Amino acid sequence: MQDRLWEIVELNPRADEQLHYETLFTIGNGYLGTRGSFEEGLPGDSPATLVHGIYDHAPGMLVPELVNVPNWLPVSIFIDGAPFKMVTKTTDIMRPPEGIVLGYRRALNMRRGILTREVLFRAPSGSVVRLEFERFASLSDIHILAQRIRITAVDGNPHIRVESAIDGDVTNMGVRHFLPEVNVDDRGDTIGVEVKTQQSRYIVGVGSRLISPHRIQTGSTGNRPYTVTSFDLAQEDWVVLDKFSSIYTSRDALQPLDTAQAKISEAVAAGYETLRERHEGEWATYWETADIQIDGDDEAQRALRFTTYHVLIAAPRTDERVSIGAKTLSGMGYKGHVFWDTELFCVPPLILAQPKLARNLLMYRYHNLPGARNKARANGYEGAMFPWESTDTGEETTPQWSDPQPDGSRIRIWTGEREQHISTDITYAIDKYWRWTGDDEFLIKYGAEMILDTAVFWGSRVEHKDGRYELSQQIGPDEYHENIDNSVFVNRMVVWHLRTALSVLAWLMGSAPADAERLIGALNLTPERLAKWNDIIAKMYIPFDHEQGIHVQFPGFFDMEYIPVPHYEPRTTSVQAILGHARSIQTQVIKQADVVMLMALLGENVGAPDGLDVRQVMLNNWNTYYPRTDHGSSLSPAMHAWVGARLGLTEVAYDMFDHAVHIDLNDNKGNVRDGIHAAACGGVWQAVIFGFCGLSIDEAGDLQVDPHLPEHWRSVTFNVYYRGEQRTFTVKNPALVSSATR
Amino acid sequence: MQDRLWEIVELNPRADEQLHYETLFTIGNGYLGTRGSFEEGLPGDSPATLVHGIYDHAPGMLVPELVNVPNWLPVSIFIDGAPFKMVTKTTDIMRPPEGIVLGYRRALNMRRGILTREVLFRAPSGSVVRLEFERFASLSDIHILAQRIRITAVDGNPHIRVESAIDGDVTNMGVRHFLPEVNVDDRGDTIGVEVKTQQSRYIVGVGSRLISPHRIQTGSTGNRPYTVTSFDLAQEDWVVLDKFSSIYTSRDALQPLDTAQAKISEAVAAGYETLRERHEGEWATYWETADIQIDGDDEAQRALRFTTYHVLIAAPRTDERVSIGAKTLSGMGYKGHVFWDTELFCVPPLILAQPKLARNLLMYRYHNLPGARNKARANGYEGAMFPWESTDTGEETTPQWSDPQPDGSRIRIWTGEREQHISTDITYAIDKYWRWTGDDEFLIKYGAEMILDTAVFWGSRVEHKDGRYELSQQIGPDEYHENIDNSVFVNRMVVWHLRTALSVLAWLMGSAPADAERLIGALNLTPERLAKWNDIIAKMYIPFDHEQGIHVQFPGFFDMEYIPVPHYEPRTTSVQAILGHARSIQTQVIKQADVVMLMALLGENVGAPDGLDVRQVMLNNWNTYYPRTDHGSSLSPAMHAWVGARLGLTEVAYDMFDHAVHIDLNDNKGNVRDGIHAAACGGVWQAVIFGFCGLSIDEAGDLQVDPHLPEHWRSVTFNVYYRGEQRTFTVKNPALVSSATR
Repeated sequence: MQDRLWEIVELNPRADEQLHYETLFTIGNGYLGTRGSFEEGLPGDSPATLVHGIYDHAPGMLVPELVNVPNWLPVSIFIDGAPFKMVTKTTDIMRPPEGIVLGYRRALNMRRGILTREVLFRAPSGSVVRLEFERFASLSDIHILAQRIRITAVDGNPHIRVESAIDGDVTNMGVRHFLPEVNVDDRGDTIGVEVKTQQSRYIVGVGSRLISPHRIQTGSTGNRPYTVTSFDLAQEDWVVLDKFSSIYTSRDALQPLDTAQAKISEAVAAGYETLRERHEGEWATYWETADIQIDGDDEAQRALRFTTYHVLIAAPRTDERVSIGAKTLSGMGYKGHVFWDTELFCVPPLILAQPKLARNLLMYRYHNLPGARNKARANGYEGAMFPWESTDTGEETTPQWSDPQPDGSRIRIWTGEREQHISTDITYAIDKYWRWTGDDEFLIKYGAEMILDTAVFWGSRVEHKDGRYELSQQIGPDEYHENIDNSVFVNRMVVWHLRTALSVLAWLMGSAPADAERLIGALNLTPERLAKWNDIIAKMYIPFDHEQGIHVQFPGFFDMEYIPVPHYEPRTTSVQAILGHARSIQTQVIKQADVVMLMALLGENVGAPDGLDVRQVMLNNWNTYYPRTDHGSSLSPAMHAWVGARLGLTEVAYDMFDHAVHIDLNDNKGNVRDGIHAAACGGVWQAVIFGFCGLSIDEAGDLQVDPHLPEHWRSVTFNVYYRGEQRTFTVKNPALVSSATR
Repeated sequence: MQDRLWEIVELNPRADEQLHYETLFTIGNGYLGTRGSFEEGLPGDSPATLVHGIYDHAPGMLVPELVNVPNWLPVSIFIDGAPFKMVTKTTDIMRPPEGIVLGYRRALNMRRGILTREVLFRAPSGSVVRLEFERFASLSDIHILAQRIRITAVDGNPHIRVESAIDGDVTNMGVRHFLPEVNVDDRGDTIGVEVKTQQSRYIVGVGSRLISPHRIQTGSTGNRPYTVTSFDLAQEDWVVLDKFSSIYTSRDALQPLDTAQAKISEAVAAGYETLRERHEGEWATYWETADIQIDGDDEAQRALRFTTYHVLIAAPRTDERVSIGAKTLSGMGYKGHVFWDTELFCVPPLILAQPKLARNLLMYRYHNLPGARNKARANGYEGAMFPWESTDTGEETTPQWSDPQPDGSRIRIWTGEREQHISTDITYAIDKYWRWTGDDEFLIKYGAEMILDTAVFWGSRVEHKDGRYELSQQIGPDEYHENIDNSVFVNRMVVWHLRTALSVLAWLMGSAPADAERLIGALNLTPERLAKWNDIIAKMYIPFDHEQGIHVQFPGFFDMEYIPVPHYEPRTTSVQAILGHARSIQTQVIKQADVVMLMALLGENVGAPDGLDVRQVMLNNWNTYYPRTDHGSSLSPAMHAWVGARLGLTEVAYDMFDHAVHIDLNDNKGNVRDGIHAAACGGVWQAVIFGFCGLSIDEAGDLQVDPHLPEHWRSVTFNVYYRGEQRTFTVKNPALVSSATR
């Protein structure tokens, strides 16, 4: 009851929901993520453990992908000789040929970071056992993975045999990433598997030990070492088995398997309860600042905790050379690649709630500056041009072609070459981090270099035409319209970027002159270059329709066919899919609104030409683009919620929020099996804090709230770090009542 | 957003949930109930309209059942020649061979009593249409059934053909209840079907008219008259079609079909919007007193509205010769028979919220006194002995044998003969009605006669043995233990019954002496008989274990095998099913606790032997019976919530409430397809009002509350009628803060 709004519960397991729940019930600790597959397996399941940074480019594949490492979950339970399986139908409830599940409850407790499953099972022999499974990926010691299984003989005196294993024969949906030589250790109590990736040559060591009050035996079949224990259980008696596993890779240890096995000894010595206590203590610290309390909307409360949970388990805690992929570590969608989703969607919540984690993510980009510089050079530009899709190398890893479509054709993917705003998105996140944390050291040492060198890129990228600056062949957030000229999103953000670069440089010259000197030299920030930046700022072409008083997504946009998107309701399909790709790209249907995103990022600084009221222009923009947007991207609704709330349109803002916060839980599009939508998770946090609550830093450097809460929300309470200090806000509806410093 | 907590929404239609949602989305008005089947049908569906009182005993069937009357829902829509169907998978989204649902939302709005469905559908031709369906069974005019269908051409210029029909060939799961001669009327605009039931010879007339802005044509195929309209729809154009139907039976009209057709003319003249407005107005009146507002638990709030909605739509508004079946009018479970579920579970909420409806239900029993007297006589007793299962005749209609089991065997059903407490349950409801409403006229004219004549029955039923009174061969609420001697529930309730009878008689003699005389004469209430009642009250054997300080369910109960029910967790199956029928009846596993039910009904008046504290005995009882109860009956959890709350055990009480309030919504047992669990619906209302809020009438005749709210509930606001006056309470947690008269 205490955790009523902290749990996601599954009561009726269904075959057609299996992969959806595997994703939802992912556990993780910022080092790895493990999908919520059953210990004993189930036909059609897709177990996976993904470790940050372990990518591999297998022969014949277009691009590298995050590798599914050996599976530490397997526990098979045999009752009177027959295996426990999640069988939910039978011909005979008293003597079920394959056994039968008499009751089931699975719950992800987000407060505790623990996944539990309880099953009442009748074995073919007639015995009834209760099986209680618990698992967590320790947040306090990221190399410890713990499982506890309690088996109770409810009816009968069954003979129980338990086989705990590590499965070394895993693949990424059939693609094998390991070299044939697998080191299988079944000699001692702590079994192990060590594998090496084919192309990247990462070594991954997985160790595991089963603790049983009864005798254990170890062995192996192929690449699957196992531990077996067996015993008789008298009616009403029970046994507790603990399984401790550990994963190290050659990114963390010289001898990954040895290190994992040593870590397991440590874990065994500490004991399950102690480990769980430390893990829960760490989660408590996380939630202390990350939890947003919504009073007046239980469903939103639970769903928002769910989205926050998934951002938290995906964010690296100690490693600054990895980042969050678009599908987190919960599935194989987008191959574990890192997109702008991280900087514009996941980083801002972390800046406010867990600034150290935000810093790790920004450092990932810093360490990958060489890749960004290579990309700029390869494309004929100066400075640093971050890849649209990034992995461990920092090189561009966007595939140029899609996988084959049902008709055998492949679609050309342009984003790697043309979705260049990623460099500015990263700058945006760095600037935000700096303004909120006051972490000058980071800016001086790392952040400024990224901001300035990506500015150098833009300075070399813009095209000077007829007295103004333009940018051709871009892709903005609205990916339905590719390779367009003068995207208002890109052009306007480039202006913002260059202004930011100049002001950061000015600040550096005042506050850290030696570092300013260093960067001016290293990046060749000549007076001519800086003058050009100012010229671009002054003369960049910002497409604007003075008659309508709106920003124009790109010139020519309104010449295309108008499709009233709201007419296509209700729908779970994108309007693009309904119209067909060939037609939709010739229409005004927008995947996610560039101009709305611009208003989210810049607020009133989006600006308006002289004589026009910026608030009015923003409303005009909303009224123009909202009915043209089909939210074909999961990134879209949260940004619309944010902007809608700022414009006082709380009803539609709530609809958008409600959509965004349930993208994974409801799985209306049926693609959650591929992983959690990281950007939507980070986006809803921003929609609540920056949108509904209206948190901002005012000109004096003080925090302000300006709430436009949904009608039925009584209040929102949240914590943020501001310049190292934790601040607690309670924003009441209809108006702010109190704000306090803790 | 306004109706967020008033709606049950379905977003992902699933084949395996189809029948469950058909039941959940039943609409009704106390005259009839219509399951939430789709207008166009779907393989595997089970459409049904059940009209109160229309039972039939078809040849070869064990007992009569409520008859599925001709279906008024059918509307088939053809787009460019191909039928609209709920197809959710396709091989080609642009040219789907059978069409494809691109989006779907179905919602039961409980505040408005309206079921809506929106579908975005691509026809095989490629055209995309939006279909919006709306339906209601008018609460303001119970013979009016209305449907509205709006068809919008979203993409393309489709040709639309709509066929509206009445299906006269319906059956009860294959059992045909109509005589072969069906009157089909397709001559005018208002089509019709008139049928006559086989054995009971009820006539049912169903009329229907489709209102289209385009030309209509009528015709028929067999017993299916239809109206067709067709037209072309230009892109972005839409059309609204209204279908008005009406049902009369020979219980309401001499010429049912003619009357229905005349009613339809009236409906057409009023128009859809007007009818809907009146319907919603009537619902507003219902909710004004029936709605319980829970602050602090959105899910409980919505679920409680759902359970209340189903009690309201099942309760007859104007007819006092029908009653609510165990599965309401939402499914064919229990064949529409009326059990104690009505009086002890559904009537009490209505007594407080809609006393007139409660009165109708009690009058049903009054009109069926002849059947009850027949049953007593047939069994060799005096007075009135109400049937365990009742239909339109008032005769006992419990089958003696079950339908064949999977192995071909049949189970003997004893409840019709042995579950005799039904007569006392009815008395309990009458007494409660009288005390809350102060409706003396009802008591004098009808209620007293029932109370007294059932008391006469008990006076003749008890067995005098060894100086005390006993009752052998009974079945209490715990139906796992049949034909037991000296059920504490039955014996104790008989004492309560006789006491109540005596005090009602005393009151009558004072307040309505002529009526007292009348009844004394008619029922032969001789001084000897009354003296015997007093003797029974004094000497009834109430099984009690003085050592344990508990009521004993029946002597010998504790000699059976003890099975710790909580060990069988989690489970969706009853422990009886897990143990098997043969074994479980030899154990202490209880279907629903007789003693807990006794404590719900009598509170502290359950009593304790001298020297024992009744509160302590009640706690002892709870601690004894709660761990033995498997809640194999859907009636059980709500009563446990009520009693648990009164005992201050709010945590377990909330668990029980949560279980009870979601029985239909969650469908953990998979039987909701057969209909709503009426008793659970009425039970949760009582658990909240009598249990958590602790509403009662004190000795001075004033209303009191004594709240034990679940920890997370802030407050509960509710309205009750007390002696004709409406009272509003807000019960706050932790203590009562305000109570006001409106």
